[in-house]
Amino acid sequence: MGMNGLIVGATQGIGFGFVRKLLLDESITKLYATYRDRSTATDLFALQDEHFDRLVCLPIDTTEETQIAQAVKQIQAEVDRLDLVINCVGVLHNDTLSPEKSLRQIESDRLLRYFQVNSISAILLAKHLLPLLSHRNRCIFATISAKVGSIGDNQLGGWYGYRASKTALNMLMKTASIEYRRKNSQAIVVVLHPGTTDTELSRPFQRSVSPEKLFSVDRTVDQLLTVLSKLTEADSGEFFSWDGSRLPW
Amino acid sequence: MGMNGLIVGATQGIGFGFVRKLLLDESITKLYATYRDRSTATDLFALQDEHFDRLVCLPIDTTEETQIAQAVKQIQAEVDRLDLVINCVGVLHNDTLSPEKSLRQIESDRLLRYFQVNSISAILLAKHLLPLLSHRNRCIFATISAKVGSIGDNQLGGWYGYRASKTALNMLMKTASIEYRRKNSQAIVVVLHPGTTDTELSRPFQRSVSPEKLFSVDRTVDQLLTVLSKLTEADSGEFFSWDGSRLPW
Repeated sequence: MGMNGLIVGATQGIGFGFVRKLLLDESITKLYATYRDRSTATDLFALQDEHFDRLVCLPIDTTEETQIAQAVKQIQAEVDRLDLVINCVGVLHNDTLSPEKSLRQIESDRLLRYFQVNSISAILLAKHLLPLLSHRNRCIFATISAKVGSIGDNQLGGWYGYRASKTALNMLMKTASIEYRRKNSQAIVVVLHPGTTDTELSRPFQRSVSPEKLFSVDRTVDQLLTVLSKLTEADSGEFFSWDGSRLPW
Repeated sequence: MGMNGLIVGATQGIGFGFVRKLLLDESITKLYATYRDRSTATDLFALQDEHFDRLVCLPIDTTEETQIAQAVKQIQAEVDRLDLVINCVGVLHNDTLSPEKSLRQIESDRLLRYFQVNSISAILLAKHLLPLLSHRNRCIFATISAKVGSIGDNQLGGWYGYRASKTALNMLMKTASIEYRRKNSQAIVVVLHPGTTDTELSRPFQRSVSPEKLFSVDRTVDQLLTVLSKLTEADSGEFFSWDGSRLPW
C-alpha cells in the first residue's frame, strides 16, 4: 500500500525541495503541498501540472486556523490517513521583520509575530492533523526547527525573537509527541535542524557561513530524509540535526 | 554601601513574599515594588505606609512597554544602580485563561496571551533595566520560571501554552544573560523554579500535590534567596530549582 504525504510551506526553499524529491519516490501515492500566497507558488503549480495524478496543492496561511481546518477537511475527504508530514513554515526576516541584534531592538509586536508564525502555526497543524495520524501504522510528523533555538547551545546571543520562537516550537512539539503517542504508538513527532541551507531565509546571513557549511536545498532534503528514514518510535519527541545527531534543548 | 532592589509583580504570592522578606534585610536601602492593578495592591500599600522611607511602589503592567519605561525612568531619577531584581510576573490561569488539557483546546489567542505575559514581559524588562544593572558590581536579575517549562523534563504533556511560554522565557533570559555579561561581567541573569507554592497560581492544581511538596510562600522565598545568595558569575544564564540544583532546558 502506498504512502500519503503532506508538505506544509511548500512554495520555496526546503519545503519545495521536499516536494520535488518525494515525487521521485514511487511509494508516495498522494502528496499534498500547501502554499500561503498563490502569486509566489508558480513553481509548485508547474510541478502540479506535471504530476496532476499525485500532487495536490492546497492554500493554507498557517496563522489562520480556519484555513488549516479547511485544508485538512479536503485531505480527509480524499485519504483516510497520512504517513509523512513535514512542516517547513518559518520566518526569520521579511519586508517588515528582521532579527534583533540587541535588547535595544526588542519590540513586543515583533516577538508576537515570530511566535505566531514559527511556534503557534505548528501546534495548530498538530491539532488538526491528529486524526489523520491516529492510525496503527508508523507515521512521521516532522517540523523544521533550528539549532539557534537550542538554549543549551546558545553562545552568541542576539536574535531574541527567532531563537525563542524556535525554542517554544520545540516545547510545543515535544508536548504534542506525548499526546500523539497515546493515539498511535507508532507516531514519531520530531523537530529538525536542517543546517544552513541556501534559501531566502539564510541569504542575508550567508557571508558568515563557510562554503562547505552552506548546503544546497537538494543536499539538505537528502540529509533530512535520511535522518527521518532511520527514526524509531523511541525517537519521538526529540530534536535532530541534519547529520542524525541529537541536539540539546 | 546599601543595596537597591526591585520586585516586579509584587502585589501577591511569591512577589509579595519577597518584598516582606527583603524589608527585614537592613542591607537593602531602597526597595522598589511594582503592581499592575491598584485595586488588588492593598497589602503592598499597607507595607509601604509602614516602610515609607525604604519601599517605593510603582505601577507597571509589564505587557505595556511604555509603563516599564516610565517606571524605570522614575527609578533612575532616584538611584544610580540596582543590585537585585526579581521578576515574579506570570500567569497560568485567570478569569479568561486556563491551561490546555489537550490539543483540542489549542487556540492561537490563548497561546499569544501566554507568550505576552510570561515571555515577552520579561525581556521588555531586561531591555529597560540593562542601564541600571550595567555597573561594576555584582548584581542579580532573576525571573521566576517553572520546571514545566523544561523540555527535557516534560513527561506528562498538556499545558501547551504555559509550558511553551516558560520555555521561551528561559531562552530569552539565556540570550539576555549573554548581552548583560558584555556590559557587566558580574551581572548574574538566571531563571528559577520556585517549586509548587501555596499561591493563587497553583490553587486549582494543589489537589495533585502531596502536602510536603506544597511550599508556603515564606518557605519558597527563603529557599530562593538562599539559591541567589550562592550564585557566581559562572552561573549566569542558567536555570535553578528551589534546592539549588540545575534544571535541564
